[in-house]
Amino acid sequence: MDKVVNLAKRRGLVFSGSEIYGGLANSYDFGPLGVELKNNIKKLWWRMFVQERSDVVGLDSGIILSAKVWERSGHLKNFNDELVECKSCHERYKAGDLKKKVCPSCGKDEFTKTRAFNTMFKTNLGPVATPTQSPPYQGGEEEGVVYLRPETAQGIFVDFKTVQETSRQRVPFGIAQIGKVFRNEITPGNFIFRTREFEQMEIEYFVREENWKKHFDEWESEMKRWIEAVGIDKKRVKYVDVPDSERAHYSKKTIDIEFEFPFGQSELYGLAYRTDFDLKAHGLDYRDPATGDRFVPHVIEPSLGVERTVLAVLLSCYDEVAGGRTTTTAAAKEKEIVLRLPRSIAPIKAAVLPLSKKKELTEAARAIRDKLAKRFMTDYDETGSIGRRYRRQDEVGTPFCITVDFDTLNDNQVTIRERDTMEQKRLGIEEVEDYLLANL
Amino acid sequence: MDKVVNLAKRRGLVFSGSEIYGGLANSYDFGPLGVELKNNIKKLWWRMFVQERSDVVGLDSGIILSAKVWERSGHLKNFNDELVECKSCHERYKAGDLKKKVCPSCGKDEFTKTRAFNTMFKTNLGPVATPTQSPPYQGGEEEGVVYLRPETAQGIFVDFKTVQETSRQRVPFGIAQIGKVFRNEITPGNFIFRTREFEQMEIEYFVREENWKKHFDEWESEMKRWIEAVGIDKKRVKYVDVPDSERAHYSKKTIDIEFEFPFGQSELYGLAYRTDFDLKAHGLDYRDPATGDRFVPHVIEPSLGVERTVLAVLLSCYDEVAGGRTTTTAAAKEKEIVLRLPRSIAPIKAAVLPLSKKKELTEAARAIRDKLAKRFMTDYDETGSIGRRYRRQDEVGTPFCITVDFDTLNDNQVTIRERDTMEQKRLGIEEVEDYLLANL
Repeated sequence: MDKVVNLAKRRGLVFSGSEIYGGLANSYDFGPLGVELKNNIKKLWWRMFVQERSDVVGLDSGIILSAKVWERSGHLKNFNDELVECKSCHERYKAGDLKKKVCPSCGKDEFTKTRAFNTMFKTNLGPVATPTQSPPYQGGEEEGVVYLRPETAQGIFVDFKTVQETSRQRVPFGIAQIGKVFRNEITPGNFIFRTREFEQMEIEYFVREENWKKHFDEWESEMKRWIEAVGIDKKRVKYVDVPDSERAHYSKKTIDIEFEFPFGQSELYGLAYRTDFDLKAHGLDYRDPATGDRFVPHVIEPSLGVERTVLAVLLSCYDEVAGGRTTTTAAAKEKEIVLRLPRSIAPIKAAVLPLSKKKELTEAARAIRDKLAKRFMTDYDETGSIGRRYRRQDEVGTPFCITVDFDTLNDNQVTIRERDTMEQKRLGIEEVEDYLLANL
Repeated sequence: MDKVVNLAKRRGLVFSGSEIYGGLANSYDFGPLGVELKNNIKKLWWRMFVQERSDVVGLDSGIILSAKVWERSGHLKNFNDELVECKSCHERYKAGDLKKKVCPSCGKDEFTKTRAFNTMFKTNLGPVATPTQSPPYQGGEEEGVVYLRPETAQGIFVDFKTVQETSRQRVPFGIAQIGKVFRNEITPGNFIFRTREFEQMEIEYFVREENWKKHFDEWESEMKRWIEAVGIDKKRVKYVDVPDSERAHYSKKTIDIEFEFPFGQSELYGLAYRTDFDLKAHGLDYRDPATGDRFVPHVIEPSLGVERTVLAVLLSCYDEVAGGRTTTTAAAKEKEIVLRLPRSIAPIKAAVLPLSKKKELTEAARAIRDKLAKRFMTDYDETGSIGRRYRRQDEVGTPFCITVDFDTLNDNQVTIRERDTMEQKRLGIEEVEDYLLANL
């Protein structure tokens, strides 16, 4: 874990948010390479499950929805953590996290009674009063109260009818959404594993009740296909059937898809059969245009966290190889890092490296970079030895390095090096773009 | 405006949020076609300004930042609207919006004094007290107070050093960010023109003070290039130099880029010279690796709203043509809508239409759809007359329709129809993908 966190920080993939102000607890920002990685993961998911499938359409609903949504969905009542407070130092804990009856902060052993703490973030919409304002702003605490969504799913449910009608989809079909959600966790932690602000990729797939098992199984296969495509080590993934007693009250079957993180096997994704609980709660139904019968569709929900995906991908793809891979000098004794990302999600697809800083070479290299950059993220690097530059690209997972040398000026050819095989190929400058597009 | 709003609603591009609960005032959701349009706009911006340029890198910082950020940036003190309340009906208004001294709601004319209302959304991080909770949860109102960002810019400023160091960029260079922001507007309105939750695309471009004018002019050209590329009618765009008295206190020059909306000429984008105000406020500086001198970079900021872009694009590309364009039947008397979107941002790139519902045709058409869908958003539609189906695609801007007819079964060719010219071309099935890729 430390190695991945260090790499992420050193290369500006992911680092603490608001760092110059001492950081905001458990909040992380994605730097230039991190935002590319994250966007590529989201694009891959959208391509596989929205673009390619003809039975899933996309949606982008608000982060702030009507408070009634959360009342009806049951979140206002049930989206709680069990909170206890140490009577001595007033530190607060999630009750389940206290293994011993001793405060981890001060060592005393007296706690308050357990209380439900709703983990939705609350705010006020429109110009309302705050207690520090004097009259006439007497809106009161509850005026205009709204919540930041703790899941993207409810936005999908409340828009079900509009989306179904305007997209002319028929059951079975799904609605997909990617977006930020907020959960006021008592105990966030483990780098980007559990944060209060994160992104979800969710599909609500609407089916006839009698077919739920078939579709559930199909989506389990789809999750496996995804895990393979995005580069998560499938040997570290476990499919855990959640027993009756531990499932959410609305679910008749849930599979926790867990990953062997360095801090323990923990939930990566979820696949739930949510029954017709949500659509019923919102009073929505569906009329089959062919048969004319009305019913409330049942729902299969594959739910994915973007940041957890990033973390599982980094842990799966991080590799260290013996020194000397890219250089034969003394520095070669250090281990070399190779991030073996699938090409589709690598932040940089190709790096153009002039062998020296001679103007003829850098000009030729920059021209290649500018041409390729119209098609995909392309880096340009002229600083340091060529071995060092290879290492820089290897450790952020760049699949191809293109070296421009003095021969290039005569034969118009460059050397393309592949990250994993380290195979080098000599190719005409004009062929490079097509070669890369075919191999990305 | 009504025509565009109706089209957006009817085709599920954009519609009111939380509609089943009577809607949440001035909140809008993007349906299947809307989310594609919005994503394509964001991708185009990212491609033009991050991917293609070697001097701009991306970032994705949090929506919730440390409260200190907003203290230092001046937002806590200055990000205010002037609020007045009608003494009779207690309706609240933005002072500047009241043209007459008479309440638009109840007609009375007595108002409270104008007060500053901070338009940042406030919430609490971590398990803190709310006044309705009994002891021991006495965290008090101010415990863990944080704000939802009202602009993406500050996230860029506070991460300036980390991004600069890890990306090894040198001044002049820029950091770009796309993301949700929240402003608790007193009077949102005009469809998606002014909403409380919206998305920004911002670049903070860091320069040496002495070069600010040159870079400002460059970014003005870049904005013009963008407006052209995204399909906004440049004849309706005005560049308004904001006079000294109306500029934000930190800015030495600002151009409001305004669009002739149906409700009046209003701000579409902004281009501001923010001086070194923000980096100074956060105590950040820069050391030039070549010369070794330390200084606080000055900033040029092109700032774009995604939803306003969508609106200006829809208004610019909406076209009505005389009936009979796609059909010669009686129904042809109605006007036909064509949304003349640039191909790069069209939600659907191609639609595959079997001439009839005969199985041989639908199977062949579906196979073409599935193949194309691996590369770009491709629709399939077998319902209604072919003229009707062309109209359906025209009004959401689909550049190409591919018709599969009975000849196709013999000669393996399809008819490709282009949206604007209505030119039809007969092409071999195997050639379709390359033809479309070359023309998209």
